[in-house]
Amino acid sequence: MSLPLFFTENIDVNASRVTLDEGNSKHIIQVLRMKQGDALRLTDGKGNIFTGNIFDEHKKACIVNIKEHALQASSPRKSTIAISLVKNAARFEWFLEKAVEAGMNTIIPLLCERTEKAHFRYDRMQQIMISAMLQSQQAWLPVLAEPVKYKDWLPAHTNTVKCIAHCNNEEKYHFRQITDGNDDITICIGPEGDFTEQEIALALQHDFKPVSLGNTRLRTETAGIAAAVLLAIK
Amino acid sequence: MSLPLFFTENIDVNASRVTLDEGNSKHIIQVLRMKQGDALRLTDGKGNIFTGNIFDEHKKACIVNIKEHALQASSPRKSTIAISLVKNAARFEWFLEKAVEAGMNTIIPLLCERTEKAHFRYDRMQQIMISAMLQSQQAWLPVLAEPVKYKDWLPAHTNTVKCIAHCNNEEKYHFRQITDGNDDITICIGPEGDFTEQEIALALQHDFKPVSLGNTRLRTETAGIAAAVLLAIK
Repeated sequence: MSLPLFFTENIDVNASRVTLDEGNSKHIIQVLRMKQGDALRLTDGKGNIFTGNIFDEHKKACIVNIKEHALQASSPRKSTIAISLVKNAARFEWFLEKAVEAGMNTIIPLLCERTEKAHFRYDRMQQIMISAMLQSQQAWLPVLAEPVKYKDWLPAHTNTVKCIAHCNNEEKYHFRQITDGNDDITICIGPEGDFTEQEIALALQHDFKPVSLGNTRLRTETAGIAAAVLLAIK
Repeated sequence: MSLPLFFTENIDVNASRVTLDEGNSKHIIQVLRMKQGDALRLTDGKGNIFTGNIFDEHKKACIVNIKEHALQASSPRKSTIAISLVKNAARFEWFLEKAVEAGMNTIIPLLCERTEKAHFRYDRMQQIMISAMLQSQQAWLPVLAEPVKYKDWLPAHTNTVKCIAHCNNEEKYHFRQITDGNDDITICIGPEGDFTEQEIALALQHDFKPVSLGNTRLRTETAGIAAAVLLAIK
């Protein structure tokens, strides 16, 4: 069984003692009832994992003695998913959780022509990502961008491989036809009701290749999860 | 835009007129406010799609005149996911929805050693599957089995390719190493906390091959969705 893992930003990699913030302290001491001497791990979401023991079980400022520092390897390819927001925020949150579990590196919420007005609470989304990172025993927190207009974002976006998953019936590539699984890659997922013809044309004009996510019609968040799985597995 | 699609069991393929049940009638006439003459489609979840028009907008027994009958091709491979129930029913329901969207054929809920007591409401699950089938424009309703004990089910289960996704560190296959994407296939997904050593041994003994779903540790329902995506894409 792995030691419990907690997130705390900005730990000095050479620190031998760390004072946790109130949220973590409360969670560790009051909720989990951990005691002085209990072992745990901390990560800063930037690949660092610190192993240590509780030195002072203070419920607002728990102090941990650090015994060991390790760096978790980052994913060999950098995977970016740019995806339309959806009206039902819970569905977007599920996508986010699953995308983090699968090990994506960057998530860019898109505002497309047909994106329905959607609530976007950055802090809440960030918390969901942190929980998913810890849950899946990872030490790299993906980058979550602020929502951006598709037509402003797309022309400026660069990556080794760029692709778009739209629902038009034209010929599409399998992922394996456009990448051997090692390239840094970006995939765009459209809103319910799909990208408009103009949006698809804009993507093709900027060298985004149309890719297939299977033969069935997927909801936006399902397409996002499918893309995350396919990018994670190669 | 496709015509709206509704599910109704047991339609005679030669019928020229169908009377819908109260649930569908209410939904179509009262909620969607469709009128006499409006076009719609019906499916029985067994591949048949009937296109017709409302003949009598009765809100308890709407009558549809059938104009056309078509058979949707079934998926070329039959994909089965046998997956542990999870404590949080909503998470299992999300898996089900996504697995249907991706086009799986059979879902078998498993009771493993470490499966936590979970509520299983067959009728509710079935409704979720029907909604997901209609949403994703499919006419084949996957089969949902009743929950079964893993150790009773596994030895009796036969399929062309059988695999298991467990979290032990031993060498695992990529799907592509064990199937070209055309074989009928079954994949087993364990509970939170994974299969026990004995359960894994039982699977290997019965020719289940260990497969990889990526390098990160996935929740049960995420592993289920990942498996569904990988089986759907080949």
